[in-house]
Amino acid sequence: MTFNKIKIVVAVAGIFMASASYAAIKVDSAEQTEKPNIIFIFADDLGWGDISKHGHPDIRTPNIDRIANEGSEFYQFSVSNPVCSPSRAAVLTGQYPARNSVHRHFATFEHHDNYAMPDWLDKNVVTMPRVLQQAGYKTAHFGKWHLTNRNIKDAPLPTEYGYDEAAVFNGPGPQTDTFKLYDDATDFIKRNKDVPFFINLWIHETHTPHYPPQDSMAKYTHLNEQDQVYAAVVDGADQRIGKILNLLDELNLAENTLIVFSSDNGPEVTGSKNNHFHHHDPDGKVEGIDPLGTYFSVGTTAGLRGQKRDTYEGGLRVPFLVRWPTTVPAGRVDTESVVTAVDLLPTFADIAGAKLPQNYQPDGQSILALLKGGTLTREKPLYWQWQYGKKSGKKPMLAVREGPWKLFYFQHENRIELYNIMRDRAETMNVASQYPAIVKKLTGLAIAWNETLPTSPKPSTFSELRQ
Amino acid sequence: MTFNKIKIVVAVAGIFMASASYAAIKVDSAEQTEKPNIIFIFADDLGWGDISKHGHPDIRTPNIDRIANEGSEFYQFSVSNPVCSPSRAAVLTGQYPARNSVHRHFATFEHHDNYAMPDWLDKNVVTMPRVLQQAGYKTAHFGKWHLTNRNIKDAPLPTEYGYDEAAVFNGPGPQTDTFKLYDDATDFIKRNKDVPFFINLWIHETHTPHYPPQDSMAKYTHLNEQDQVYAAVVDGADQRIGKILNLLDELNLAENTLIVFSSDNGPEVTGSKNNHFHHHDPDGKVEGIDPLGTYFSVGTTAGLRGQKRDTYEGGLRVPFLVRWPTTVPAGRVDTESVVTAVDLLPTFADIAGAKLPQNYQPDGQSILALLKGGTLTREKPLYWQWQYGKKSGKKPMLAVREGPWKLFYFQHENRIELYNIMRDRAETMNVASQYPAIVKKLTGLAIAWNETLPTSPKPSTFSELRQ
Repeated sequence: MTFNKIKIVVAVAGIFMASASYAAIKVDSAEQTEKPNIIFIFADDLGWGDISKHGHPDIRTPNIDRIANEGSEFYQFSVSNPVCSPSRAAVLTGQYPARNSVHRHFATFEHHDNYAMPDWLDKNVVTMPRVLQQAGYKTAHFGKWHLTNRNIKDAPLPTEYGYDEAAVFNGPGPQTDTFKLYDDATDFIKRNKDVPFFINLWIHETHTPHYPPQDSMAKYTHLNEQDQVYAAVVDGADQRIGKILNLLDELNLAENTLIVFSSDNGPEVTGSKNNHFHHHDPDGKVEGIDPLGTYFSVGTTAGLRGQKRDTYEGGLRVPFLVRWPTTVPAGRVDTESVVTAVDLLPTFADIAGAKLPQNYQPDGQSILALLKGGTLTREKPLYWQWQYGKKSGKKPMLAVREGPWKLFYFQHENRIELYNIMRDRAETMNVASQYPAIVKKLTGLAIAWNETLPTSPKPSTFSELRQ
Repeated sequence: MTFNKIKIVVAVAGIFMASASYAAIKVDSAEQTEKPNIIFIFADDLGWGDISKHGHPDIRTPNIDRIANEGSEFYQFSVSNPVCSPSRAAVLTGQYPARNSVHRHFATFEHHDNYAMPDWLDKNVVTMPRVLQQAGYKTAHFGKWHLTNRNIKDAPLPTEYGYDEAAVFNGPGPQTDTFKLYDDATDFIKRNKDVPFFINLWIHETHTPHYPPQDSMAKYTHLNEQDQVYAAVVDGADQRIGKILNLLDELNLAENTLIVFSSDNGPEVTGSKNNHFHHHDPDGKVEGIDPLGTYFSVGTTAGLRGQKRDTYEGGLRVPFLVRWPTTVPAGRVDTESVVTAVDLLPTFADIAGAKLPQNYQPDGQSILALLKGGTLTREKPLYWQWQYGKKSGKKPMLAVREGPWKLFYFQHENRIELYNIMRDRAETMNVASQYPAIVKKLTGLAIAWNETLPTSPKPSTFSELRQ
């Protein structure tokens, strides 16, 4: 597990480069190496533009940037839904969230009924932690849950999904907080340094309630109040991530630990001054500090269109930084390969040498060869569905991406939009009228995909407390 | 000159296609054909998004679209300056406007002094009409001039620039109007149908003062007042252009007439309600109709960044539609080739078989092979300069485009922006920090180019009336 244990490391230069040039790659030439640790850091409402490496004019994120600089990053990574619960369900299951009827965030029974949602993610589906647990990993989940709502009192515990340990908020059981989740991860890493471990570290700083640390606020006194608070919460996250990186260094675990940093969706829409404080929703609540609200949610997309709740790239495209020194080339910036959240489960399974159950239907594919410095040939298009709810009377919007093309099918308006994402990253020019053959093909694909989805949740995923 | 006179026309399929597929191309296999007529229609403040073929949600432009559908269009065409006079000077001279010190629009002596401008475009430089006149063309200019200001009473007449005939506004001599310029062109075409002719038809509807025709207003009653007026003025232009196209059909001139449609810069910034009327600036004035102001200037860029006065694509990139049935493939949409306004003079000269004077320094190149259905290899980068004026104390902004890269060098702030225009058509992501080698190269090119430019106008281009 430590660097010293790795058998043979050779420098291989000149491996085919998918896009930008990067430093020489170290690959393990042995047939089998020890299984790497895996830490998936999933930020909350952090936008594509919110890290200094992506050109934010004010915010400095040296530790998050370090993950990219010592590893690879992928500009075309997107999540499978532009809001929290379905985006996270996709990561956990490797399936589009609509396949498990997780259409919107978990909230109240009435809300779930309106969106034809279950009251929690089905605990019996294939999950990332269970796959890794069965492959010999010690598995843990620290931070946000939101695969049910904290108010659904009979929801399954995180440990029923394949975790050996968990301490979560907005989930069942005792609630952890925004800061404590890092302490839990630190403790878990120390206790499990000699076995392969997997941590879902679902951090929360950039989501309300905001708790800007005083030392971080002091770094950004030159900014206006909103930008200062937001920069400070990002800075807090960056510092805490830095401590995790330092811990891995101290324990000699860094070389063979895969760290992935990403975010669940694009930035939150900035609230009015009325949303200065945030008292109503205690996710990750820290006692004794007055929580700040969406007035300070000023995350950025670096020009991508839309933000949280939008299926435009601003809602879906998020940082995707991957560090694994023994295996993933350092300094690579791949601006072209289309990578998505449902690829994570098959990729982690591939890395762990885990076999996926025969009846499992993955929506993504392993991108391990890409991570190693190679290329990716996508086997299937990417799909999104956005539900408007029963009360609206509207059919869901469907979206599909194949190669550079992204098509939106607004069924309730019988309206199509088509963008060439590789040319038009800001989705400014609807070219549907110019490419009728592509429109026809992608619309057909979207409709066919939609027909594979269930129309209602499994009965076992309803709370007994539903009226 | 007419279709019947053309010797041999053969259909050639399978010629290399630069981007989108298009219909079979007819090319003249004879060594020499009769010189085509050339009509350059230059709209005023019409945005890239203001034609229905570019996806405008409301405005229908069947006649302008017809030029593209029966010809080719080029998405990456840009003008050489985002305001009127310098953009037009570039077209007329085939040189960057700064080479002739035309930095801003022609206005007052004080304005010219502040921007180190002449009082008119030097009449002794190589000009498009003179080149064509010397190649045997009958040459005419109808519509806007603005290569001086109407108030500069001793400016050279248009006929001193190589035109056989001219009837202009915002230039010296009697002023024509927005509608009459089409009548003049019609009359000129009829009188010259048996000789090769060249018309610069510089139309004006989308610039203030707006004169929306009643029948056009009636087509757009479903829109709000601003959109209705703007749609109506575009509709008026479209109808009048349609009449020119019909005239060419009637006279059997269409087949061997090259028509190019473009615009001098991006759309005007919409004025407040205070700018409902436009009485102060009588360009193209029509007696007896109350002229409408910039409150109705609601042109669009289809998502390009910026508009008139911006060196971002929204200010520079405009429609570029080219019809020439004997020679230019129909239905081609070239989204990749980088084409620019200073290419027009060498291209028209090439088409006319004209030799350019030995001491002439073109900034563009002939794109005739591209227009015929081939490809284009650019010989030099494209450059822009934007002057802030002496009073500001600021050095000019420089911009350069090479391949997909466009760099801005804000000298007065020592600040760089770099965009990959092919990836990021909306210029949303400044990637300067990621590509230091490209920044270094392009900054060096911009500085070197800037040093080739004169710092003051020629004495012969100053009015004797200057104080």
